[in-house]
Amino acid sequence: MQLSASISSSSSAFLSQQSWQNDSRTPKFSVSVRRDLICKCVASSTPIEKAEAYTTKVSRNANMAKLQAGYLFPEINRRKLAHLEKYPDAQVISLGIGDTTEPIPEVITSAMAERAKALSTLGGYSGYGAEQGEKKLRAAIASTYYGDLGIEDSDIFVSDGAKCDISRLQLLFGANVSIAVQDPSYPAYVDSGVILGQTGQFDKDVEKYGNIEYMRCNPENGFFPDLSSTSKTDVIFFCSPNNPTGAAATREQLTQLVQFAKKNGSIIVYDSAYGMYIADDCPRSIYEIPGAKEVAIETSSFSKYAGFTGVRLGWTVVPKELLFSDGFPVAKDFNRIVCTCFNGASNISQAGGLACLSPEGLKAMRDVIGFYKENTEIIMDTFNSLGFNVYGGKNAPYVWVHFPGQSSWDVFAEILEKTHVVTTPGSGFGPGGEGFVRVSSFGHRANVLEAAERFKQLYK
Amino acid sequence: MQLSASISSSSSAFLSQQSWQNDSRTPKFSVSVRRDLICKCVASSTPIEKAEAYTTKVSRNANMAKLQAGYLFPEINRRKLAHLEKYPDAQVISLGIGDTTEPIPEVITSAMAERAKALSTLGGYSGYGAEQGEKKLRAAIASTYYGDLGIEDSDIFVSDGAKCDISRLQLLFGANVSIAVQDPSYPAYVDSGVILGQTGQFDKDVEKYGNIEYMRCNPENGFFPDLSSTSKTDVIFFCSPNNPTGAAATREQLTQLVQFAKKNGSIIVYDSAYGMYIADDCPRSIYEIPGAKEVAIETSSFSKYAGFTGVRLGWTVVPKELLFSDGFPVAKDFNRIVCTCFNGASNISQAGGLACLSPEGLKAMRDVIGFYKENTEIIMDTFNSLGFNVYGGKNAPYVWVHFPGQSSWDVFAEILEKTHVVTTPGSGFGPGGEGFVRVSSFGHRANVLEAAERFKQLYK
Repeated sequence: MQLSASISSSSSAFLSQQSWQNDSRTPKFSVSVRRDLICKCVASSTPIEKAEAYTTKVSRNANMAKLQAGYLFPEINRRKLAHLEKYPDAQVISLGIGDTTEPIPEVITSAMAERAKALSTLGGYSGYGAEQGEKKLRAAIASTYYGDLGIEDSDIFVSDGAKCDISRLQLLFGANVSIAVQDPSYPAYVDSGVILGQTGQFDKDVEKYGNIEYMRCNPENGFFPDLSSTSKTDVIFFCSPNNPTGAAATREQLTQLVQFAKKNGSIIVYDSAYGMYIADDCPRSIYEIPGAKEVAIETSSFSKYAGFTGVRLGWTVVPKELLFSDGFPVAKDFNRIVCTCFNGASNISQAGGLACLSPEGLKAMRDVIGFYKENTEIIMDTFNSLGFNVYGGKNAPYVWVHFPGQSSWDVFAEILEKTHVVTTPGSGFGPGGEGFVRVSSFGHRANVLEAAERFKQLYK
Repeated sequence: MQLSASISSSSSAFLSQQSWQNDSRTPKFSVSVRRDLICKCVASSTPIEKAEAYTTKVSRNANMAKLQAGYLFPEINRRKLAHLEKYPDAQVISLGIGDTTEPIPEVITSAMAERAKALSTLGGYSGYGAEQGEKKLRAAIASTYYGDLGIEDSDIFVSDGAKCDISRLQLLFGANVSIAVQDPSYPAYVDSGVILGQTGQFDKDVEKYGNIEYMRCNPENGFFPDLSSTSKTDVIFFCSPNNPTGAAATREQLTQLVQFAKKNGSIIVYDSAYGMYIADDCPRSIYEIPGAKEVAIETSSFSKYAGFTGVRLGWTVVPKELLFSDGFPVAKDFNRIVCTCFNGASNISQAGGLACLSPEGLKAMRDVIGFYKENTEIIMDTFNSLGFNVYGGKNAPYVWVHFPGQSSWDVFAEILEKTHVVTTPGSGFGPGGEGFVRVSSFGHRANVLEAAERFKQLYK
């Protein structure tokens, strides 16, 4: 089977001719029956040709070896490509990896094109920018998203995206912190923690890494964790509106979360990358909660607002009020990370970000978001009409569909095989996602309507 | 004094109102007399106001606390800004941080502008790209720079710059490797190693971190380390043409280096970001040396070739032949890092990179490089005519000027104070840089000529 050729690649061509021996020195690659579908891409039955190969004497990073299979989204993409190879004529529709599909409004791309062209002129050329981002953009982000919340321009660190910032934040914290994550949650929190050495080994019986507090979020608790039974950790990753469940935490819930963090002395890393999708009065920023500046970092992104998934632009807020136990400002260490391990977001992308925050840009972003929210309604209505229990959707571009008692990967595979629609298996986001499938609303309207029809055929 | 307000910021405004107490719990901030100039930005004499401040219970990452002062280049920039505040009317010329100044050739910016505009169209829009970079660009890099060296497209990982890749490579290696660096060298190698926990504390007596092998490169050894007295380490960072000395290693020297790595089982991280500046027959890539694919990673960048310091685009080559001691391919783990901690370079920047590698783009890049090389000659001639011993320059955009017996920071400060020209103190690149100053040739011609005149006035 094709899938067995590669370990952790998202590129179908990557290392395809490479034979890698799953020998006795790497017992971590042995797999349980239950993870069979995932682990086909981990085990390998290719012939052993290693006797002659020169190896260095550098030991593989043991933390890297803890990671299970590939990072989720490249893995999904790889399966999509494998499906396309099996069915070359299939009209595959991707509602999987949450990739934006609609063109970027022209007011924004014009600004980027102008900035690019200006780089050919003496007056318009600029080299290294401030690692933290251009002053104007930092100011525009602060005033647009945190206008009356006491966040200053200098608290904003502009970046090439929230995912990249999550890794830089993990680098800041280092190996010796304990972390909590919502279960299910965006896999970058856990995987970056594993890479940094914050976790123990993966325990296949419970599908969890050691030394991570998994905060179960399910229909029974309204997708907000039971904090009374949540262990104290140094860092709490919290995403609202949540990826993948689509649930947005209420003001009351976030107040509880901030109080919980304060009681335990924890730092919250609040991921608000979907904040602008909120339709009701749930907070769009953690800093709407009094006292949050002393306990929370917030990371966000232009990816899902302006279709910047490929353009790359995000930001992270580290308030001056946030202090380590010895009183040292977290922002000063994050600034050092940003200056040492990063060199600023592309100046052209930053020009785009500034255009996003102009009055016309904001309107254009809201229009795009409105379009995706209509898609969300179509998907929700479809699954509702088929009798499924459906969650999320209202405040997020993700619909979280329950398939009780079924394996997420089985459902994912069946949907792909029978409808040629790519979704995302819930268990890819943690054990709490088992029995769910995430359906993304990022798609052209015709494709979303067509996918809805195919779902109706499959589950009629 | 102004400089004392901030610890590690490159933004003059950053945390300026923040008072940070240099109290007994942070003895690492106490400073020796010798590092006085650097450490003015570390110690603080602002009043203590911390009694009321809430602190989390999260301990500061001890590795971050090991770092000395701020990252070098933001620090230089901060001093430039402080100088400008002191002399608001001074015509400051920056030959300091190695920042490109010449407009990007139009054949390249047009391609970026077109790509940006296309993102507003249904056919031209693209979201998430492959984390490893666009296929066409990977292929163009492989054929342009490694045409007959056996490097495949899939060995190339496109990135937002070599500096960022250095940190991702360090993340890949983890805390338990030992590293060697040229002394002097680009500070990102050492600083990222400190952050990852590969090093011991900084020893002020020798100006070195523990557990790093500093390979002294000086005029006496032709700026190539004495490998017979170099300790074995897991990883060897090697930059040629070197930043800051400007020295390019010969084929014979690099053959020695590869043999040394092979003997010890080490991995070389070869930084070829200045490769296109080579004027003689020194290798432009480590892969010109037979056997290098089994021992070396190479990282490079469009920054100094096409003026992409602000656009952000680079790449790293991890050959499939490079294996950890257990036979696991290094490229597979690097691919996992890239997929988990990064989301690809901006698609607009990648369009620029592809244009760089077209026949017109290559010619345009060579013209820009030629211009900077003329600057280099002006600077070299100037210092030569003044009787200094001058190194580098021939194969690199950096001139390495010897001030025997003097402190680099003193020389840096004197030049800035008396000529309003920003340089870079050699000791910022490691103890082996003490007594040297790096003068960058990135500047408008008129500024370089003016700086040369001022140097002649100062040292006549």
